[in-house]
Amino acid sequence: MGKLFVSLFFLFAANATAQQNDSLMIRRIADEILDNGKAYENLRVLCKTVGGRVAGSPQMLKAEAWGVKTLKEAGADKVWLQECMVPHWVRGAKEECYFTVAGVKTNLDVLALGNSLGSSAKGVTAQVVLINDFDELEKRKDEIKGKIVFYNYKFNKRFVKTFQAYGDASKYRGQGPSRAAKYGAVAVIVRSMTHAADNNPHTGGMNYDSNYAKIPAVAVGLKDADKLAESLGRNKALTVFLKTNSQMLPDVKGHNVIGELIGSEFPEQIITVGGHLDSWDPAEGAHDDGAGCVHSIEILRALKAIGYKPKRTLRVVLFANEENGLRGGNKYAEEAKAKGETHYFALESDAGGFTPRGFGFTMKPEQLVKVQQWSDLFKPYGVFELTAGGGGADIGPLARTFNTPLAGLQPDSQRYFDIHHARTDIFEAVNKRELELGAVNMAALIYLVDKYGL
Amino acid sequence: MGKLFVSLFFLFAANATAQQNDSLMIRRIADEILDNGKAYENLRVLCKTVGGRVAGSPQMLKAEAWGVKTLKEAGADKVWLQECMVPHWVRGAKEECYFTVAGVKTNLDVLALGNSLGSSAKGVTAQVVLINDFDELEKRKDEIKGKIVFYNYKFNKRFVKTFQAYGDASKYRGQGPSRAAKYGAVAVIVRSMTHAADNNPHTGGMNYDSNYAKIPAVAVGLKDADKLAESLGRNKALTVFLKTNSQMLPDVKGHNVIGELIGSEFPEQIITVGGHLDSWDPAEGAHDDGAGCVHSIEILRALKAIGYKPKRTLRVVLFANEENGLRGGNKYAEEAKAKGETHYFALESDAGGFTPRGFGFTMKPEQLVKVQQWSDLFKPYGVFELTAGGGGADIGPLARTFNTPLAGLQPDSQRYFDIHHARTDIFEAVNKRELELGAVNMAALIYLVDKYGL
Repeated sequence: MGKLFVSLFFLFAANATAQQNDSLMIRRIADEILDNGKAYENLRVLCKTVGGRVAGSPQMLKAEAWGVKTLKEAGADKVWLQECMVPHWVRGAKEECYFTVAGVKTNLDVLALGNSLGSSAKGVTAQVVLINDFDELEKRKDEIKGKIVFYNYKFNKRFVKTFQAYGDASKYRGQGPSRAAKYGAVAVIVRSMTHAADNNPHTGGMNYDSNYAKIPAVAVGLKDADKLAESLGRNKALTVFLKTNSQMLPDVKGHNVIGELIGSEFPEQIITVGGHLDSWDPAEGAHDDGAGCVHSIEILRALKAIGYKPKRTLRVVLFANEENGLRGGNKYAEEAKAKGETHYFALESDAGGFTPRGFGFTMKPEQLVKVQQWSDLFKPYGVFELTAGGGGADIGPLARTFNTPLAGLQPDSQRYFDIHHARTDIFEAVNKRELELGAVNMAALIYLVDKYGL
Repeated sequence: MGKLFVSLFFLFAANATAQQNDSLMIRRIADEILDNGKAYENLRVLCKTVGGRVAGSPQMLKAEAWGVKTLKEAGADKVWLQECMVPHWVRGAKEECYFTVAGVKTNLDVLALGNSLGSSAKGVTAQVVLINDFDELEKRKDEIKGKIVFYNYKFNKRFVKTFQAYGDASKYRGQGPSRAAKYGAVAVIVRSMTHAADNNPHTGGMNYDSNYAKIPAVAVGLKDADKLAESLGRNKALTVFLKTNSQMLPDVKGHNVIGELIGSEFPEQIITVGGHLDSWDPAEGAHDDGAGCVHSIEILRALKAIGYKPKRTLRVVLFANEENGLRGGNKYAEEAKAKGETHYFALESDAGGFTPRGFGFTMKPEQLVKVQQWSDLFKPYGVFELTAGGGGADIGPLARTFNTPLAGLQPDSQRYFDIHHARTDIFEAVNKRELELGAVNMAALIYLVDKYGL
């Protein structure tokens, strides 16, 4: 037996043993979560006793208290609140939207977009211009003045990964109002970004361009969008009445809720895992992003429960405000920089509590190669895709500040945009085991990064 | 450039081009199904106009008519009914099950097991013996006589793939009644095979061993099972009243519903794709196995719609009776043998309409190696697991008769046993896109097997 062969043999054997030990440790984590998991019950409490929790709302404070209590119960060494000013947008009274043809009134089910301002008390009554995409808007810019622009851009069914359809369509919500206001539109109605077979409108954040009028803007469900399009097809002069009652009040004090397991060997190296605590108001923010919050807490709970002490500091962060400002993530990175912290790695769950299928990574290619060598350890738990690109909005500022390597959980996405930002994002839409498997795979990734480094 | 190199280069180039063409063809199939899919609407009609459809029931005939109509609309060259005698089990009036402690009556929500016979008209009243597993039954066999045996075997949460938990637990339903009757039990209550957080009982087939008394047998939901176990813990002499009203009537005539696209090159080589048309009665059989039926029809529809002509004959079979007899699959293989047909390949979908994750194959190792070389073609549609072992109950007889290679669709299994054989297996539990992606991947597999052979 030659020397090289012997060395290779031992190298191989050592590697095989390491993988076997890791596989056993991950099995222990999984058994703890599948047998004794608290994520589902924690989510139930958040959804049913707090509910929807827009930044600045009274529910925000209740959610923060829930976060502190739940992190303490999970066994964090230390739990604290990090102050953070957040926007304070309020929806106000229920929106009204309808048109009348031959004396028959047709109501459209709409939700004001987040950050949008209300119409005047008497509402807006105007003719409607159906616009399929921004190219058409530019071509027809002379027809827009004094009208309501109805963006009817369709969610593309051909994207198998639905986040691609969202990336493709969401600009009509984010930029649509100001791009229409630029040409004199008086309000905007946006077709909801969803595949759902129901008629629920899907709200979400928008941003006004300060160069143009801040006109009212709502989302409309698919059936009502089709109904409006049909009616416009028959009657080009159709007028719609729209009244929204939302306001942007001065910023208020909110908090990132943070809990830690202090590292045993390199306590100064921080691994962040988190989701965002705020949600839209029409539902309970169960998948978006209650799931991410309870995933993150569950990782800490499970590692503590099986007696595993991370070498690096594991920090669970429930970010204060993602939906309409990203103030939580920005504040977290800012303060980290001011304190000279070392941010070793960050993982976010903000794509729902469905069965996990993969992780997306934003890191150096050689780091990704290292992570991909762990792929067989994830397969028994359903994760087959470890791919470049991904992270999360809340941890983005860490990467921009420190070049921190990022990862984002990628659950099965087929159902996500059925409920995203709609009334249907409630606890009942979450499956216990799917939620738990998310936490299992996230915990496995944290364990491997903590043990082997990047 | 050496000769070998040139040859290898062309071989590689030819292969790469083939993969590229296949990738484009599969994309066309996927676009057709995602854009114009009929599977979801077909399933709605089956669930909402036919509903639950136990073999032998009036709904069976309505389901057959639905199958013929839907296959014709999908564009089958030929549609026919294959006669098949099926068992005729009827549940009868609603089951009653309760116990009374200190004057307080506690009802247990139960469903008679399929094929089980009813109690006498006055019901059974007896003490209950809680049995955790068959080992315990054997140890305590002397305590069973005159008692109701309550099998409280728990669905194992640690199996990530839930069908393994089902394989582990389902013997208590299938064999439990007769194994208890052997020792003189007068009835059996079985804990439902589910992870569900609700209290719905999950029925399913059982088989009497003709050596022992045919005692009544029911499934109980998890909350009521826990309640019964608790009450027994406090009061060993607890008696339960149980009344079931089911009967096994003489066999009646049913049908496998069959539709074909006739092969252009090898019409005599038959590729079967199917699911079973029968379902349990408490719900709509949406996932089990309406999904498999509409998956199979959708493959034929989509191939026809894009003008793809298979070389081999594609035969869609909606099997008459899987749940309590397998008469449909047996009849299909029998008649195939009698006619001297050639059964080249068979694929079944009978594991729900959730997001597809893989296929399981029962075929020769070299055939599996060939199939696994296609793996990159499935990944864009979410299928990452092409593994040994799998098929389906209905196509099993083909393999036993002809050694036909088999495959079974393996969708995500986390939600399946929440609804399996329970009142919750309804259309609303099915997601349109998840269902469609099952058909996309099945169609891709059929396309590749048809084109390249096995």
